[in-house]
Amino acid sequence: MAELARLMLDEVYSLAQQALRAHGVSADHAQAIAETVTAAERDDCKSHGLFRIPGYIQAVRSGKVTPDAIPEVRELAAAVVQVDGKNGFAPLALKVGNMPLAQKARSQGIAALAVTNSYHFAALWPEVEALADLGLVGFAYVSNLSYVSPADGVRPLYGTNPMAFAWPRAGRPPLVFDQSASASARGEIQLYQRDGKPLPEGWAIDADGQPTTDPTAALAGAQLPFGGYKGAAIALMIELLAGALIGDVFSFEASEIDNNDGGPPSGGEFLIAIDPMHCVGHNDRQTQRGHAEKLFATILAQDGTRLPSERRFAARQRTPSEGITIPQALYNELQQLARTGG
Amino acid sequence: MAELARLMLDEVYSLAQQALRAHGVSADHAQAIAETVTAAERDDCKSHGLFRIPGYIQAVRSGKVTPDAIPEVRELAAAVVQVDGKNGFAPLALKVGNMPLAQKARSQGIAALAVTNSYHFAALWPEVEALADLGLVGFAYVSNLSYVSPADGVRPLYGTNPMAFAWPRAGRPPLVFDQSASASARGEIQLYQRDGKPLPEGWAIDADGQPTTDPTAALAGAQLPFGGYKGAAIALMIELLAGALIGDVFSFEASEIDNNDGGPPSGGEFLIAIDPMHCVGHNDRQTQRGHAEKLFATILAQDGTRLPSERRFAARQRTPSEGITIPQALYNELQQLARTGG
Repeated sequence: MAELARLMLDEVYSLAQQALRAHGVSADHAQAIAETVTAAERDDCKSHGLFRIPGYIQAVRSGKVTPDAIPEVRELAAAVVQVDGKNGFAPLALKVGNMPLAQKARSQGIAALAVTNSYHFAALWPEVEALADLGLVGFAYVSNLSYVSPADGVRPLYGTNPMAFAWPRAGRPPLVFDQSASASARGEIQLYQRDGKPLPEGWAIDADGQPTTDPTAALAGAQLPFGGYKGAAIALMIELLAGALIGDVFSFEASEIDNNDGGPPSGGEFLIAIDPMHCVGHNDRQTQRGHAEKLFATILAQDGTRLPSERRFAARQRTPSEGITIPQALYNELQQLARTGG
Repeated sequence: MAELARLMLDEVYSLAQQALRAHGVSADHAQAIAETVTAAERDDCKSHGLFRIPGYIQAVRSGKVTPDAIPEVRELAAAVVQVDGKNGFAPLALKVGNMPLAQKARSQGIAALAVTNSYHFAALWPEVEALADLGLVGFAYVSNLSYVSPADGVRPLYGTNPMAFAWPRAGRPPLVFDQSASASARGEIQLYQRDGKPLPEGWAIDADGQPTTDPTAALAGAQLPFGGYKGAAIALMIELLAGALIGDVFSFEASEIDNNDGGPPSGGEFLIAIDPMHCVGHNDRQTQRGHAEKLFATILAQDGTRLPSERRFAARQRTPSEGITIPQALYNELQQLARTGG
């Protein structure tokens, strides 16, 4: 077991922010990224926590990302807002777009947000939870790098293409899921490789397009979509929504232009927000929330079930008082990054 | 091999319409249903073709559905329209809602349609294709009867809950998929049962919640979502969208109130339409469609791939001249239904 460092959440935030600031990331961007990273650590989502900070910094060092970009908000239609990230990181672009999107959803009933020219490798649940916190139903779709083969295909083409959905609940965290269109996360395959274990069936094909359980062959080949052709259709839909629809790149184009600095890829994100109050007549507004709760209770009445994100919400109860742990080596690296810029 | 009757598409339409009219279905409803059924036969989607007509008629005979209901269109917000089906069949409600939805998407950029109090058992691709025909991106979500277990669950709760998506293409049919959230169609399991064959792994659990490949045990148990917990999350999302969000029933509630007449279940449908022209700045409008075509070409450049719905579109080339076939027994039944009402 690697040595661990324990941090309180405010220390997570400060460490992330200082490391970013020391490398020329503007105060607004550093704050938005530190918030996202702290939320991930709070929810015990290690793969989107402090572990990501060196990647953000690499993307600045390599010159790929503009560390002080000022996102530009533009109204494209009464119910559509665009945030041009101006070649900056996505968290600030999303933060800047959140309220205009919510306001449009509130006034029009449904609205969309197109985030373009930005660099994203955080989870999607923070942005849909931010909408649910305002009483809205939220959807988010993002593409990334080319890792997943199309249905019956032989080579990578789609990204792992996550989508997230949030439904607001009274007095408790929303119903949220955030899931990739691939059968597994790329990081999971890397863990199997590290541990010398064979992959489960159905995760990957090798460079010849043949099914494989060898992690190394899988990483040289392609990941498979979850659930066969149906997951592939969802991956395809997300390419269209986060790419062509909003005038940004597809995953395979992001791969073509990426400088492989280990930082986030270029790309777009598409969000939809719906005001539930505008989806029923006045008389039905009172019963809408309670009706959804009846569904959740009926799910939980079956032995063994749980709602999506329960593990995250349980961690959220615990970490504000207990703090979180990261490998000591990562902690040392981040402290070093926070001291020395450039 | 059962004896087959061959019909031209106009004969399909007339037969469907006459059988419905002979049983008190109003002219508008009969036309909307006959259009949907004819489109299914045209595309060689037998499970949504003339085969469905006896079910529609059963739902009239049993008194479940109001055969001359007049759908009521209501604006719930600037970008949200509701069609109250008034206890009638869904195809007319969808037809009536299509243009108001499209107009709102055109003016606001994105819009939603909530269809409530209607009875649906057609495919979803007709309604999203109708949006794509107007140059819009379309989404549709519908729940049905309780057949599918939740993630790690032991009993049916969700419907097979299809969703459909359409992306408009210039000079050719749209990119469309229409897929259930279950690992298989219920009808597929019934075919395995008829043929005495074991089911593929991962399709179903028995009444004790244990995995089964026995079709009879599966039909007495629950179908599984596609792709494990990720498909279950999509089924859950669709329950919320087609149920609580728009003030209609969940699948398990539809099962509780259904009279098991073999006709369509009661329920809601939720649609979203997006005008792609409003999702980019003016300068990017020219390249949007071509960019999507680049994605499709890149998919098809891989050996063995095809785009969703290609089989349907191929049938669509063939059937207007060749006609379609149905079992002679079904043809006789429909002729009988067209002659004798009540």
